[in-house]
Amino acid sequence: MALFDDRTQLEVLNRHDCLKLLRQAQVGRIGLLHQGRIMVVPVNFTLDDHHILFRSDPGAKLDAAIANQDVAFEVDRVDPESRTGWNVLVQGRASVVEDPDALDQLDRSGLHPWARTAKAHWIQVALEDVWGRRALSVFDQDTLTHAGY
Amino acid sequence: MALFDDRTQLEVLNRHDCLKLLRQAQVGRIGLLHQGRIMVVPVNFTLDDHHILFRSDPGAKLDAAIANQDVAFEVDRVDPESRTGWNVLVQGRASVVEDPDALDQLDRSGLHPWARTAKAHWIQVALEDVWGRRALSVFDQDTLTHAGY
Repeated sequence: MALFDDRTQLEVLNRHDCLKLLRQAQVGRIGLLHQGRIMVVPVNFTLDDHHILFRSDPGAKLDAAIANQDVAFEVDRVDPESRTGWNVLVQGRASVVEDPDALDQLDRSGLHPWARTAKAHWIQVALEDVWGRRALSVFDQDTLTHAGY
Repeated sequence: MALFDDRTQLEVLNRHDCLKLLRQAQVGRIGLLHQGRIMVVPVNFTLDDHHILFRSDPGAKLDAAIANQDVAFEVDRVDPESRTGWNVLVQGRASVVEDPDALDQLDRSGLHPWARTAKAHWIQVALEDVWGRRALSVFDQDTLTHAGY
């Protein structure tokens, strides 16, 4: 049964569905505070059972991870023409991966960062709060409504 | 002449290039503070000479605009396969559009919001700080290097 947000008429995705969509994506956006302002930048990422993981050079992302900042991580797929799509938001603490075994495994994961530098650090964002919304096509929404969902 | 960020080896886009890329996009993501946490969500948008503009129902986005929050607005296009793409970040104050003439013009702009509700309010984000980066393909970057850029 699909749950709808009364306010937005978007389908509310549960944690399981959100994680499934996150696993299919390769690029997401981290939202963090840098010098007192919000910054949102895209990164290539992977995930394990408890974290979003991506590589980073020194800079705003690494600073946020060192400070264990509570950050946001967003993934979406939106088609403006059909007005359909979905978005997933993760909110959780960022930290630097320091366990040698975990780092070794990550370095063998084949995740290529976007920028062409060493990206010497791995950053993880805990999958604390995970939520998402999906906008079905007009046709699908009407069908669901008529079917009594 | 292309400028490169020494740290990331990404091409630094100037304000003119960033605005051009923003004008070609239809979907961006607003990053704001909601109940003390960062939130990043996609919206359909348009822009005039001084603002990013999008519709919103009551909720976190409208609250941020009423509070004149300093927010982030991000647009990107990234191809994980070729490791190429670009991203643009706008940082500026959010506010609610209240001028009747401006509202009238916006309502006739044909911008369809993603969610299927009234979206009664128009929110604007001032184009205060605008910056962007572009990752060229490996081939293009080598060409540029050899050409002495």
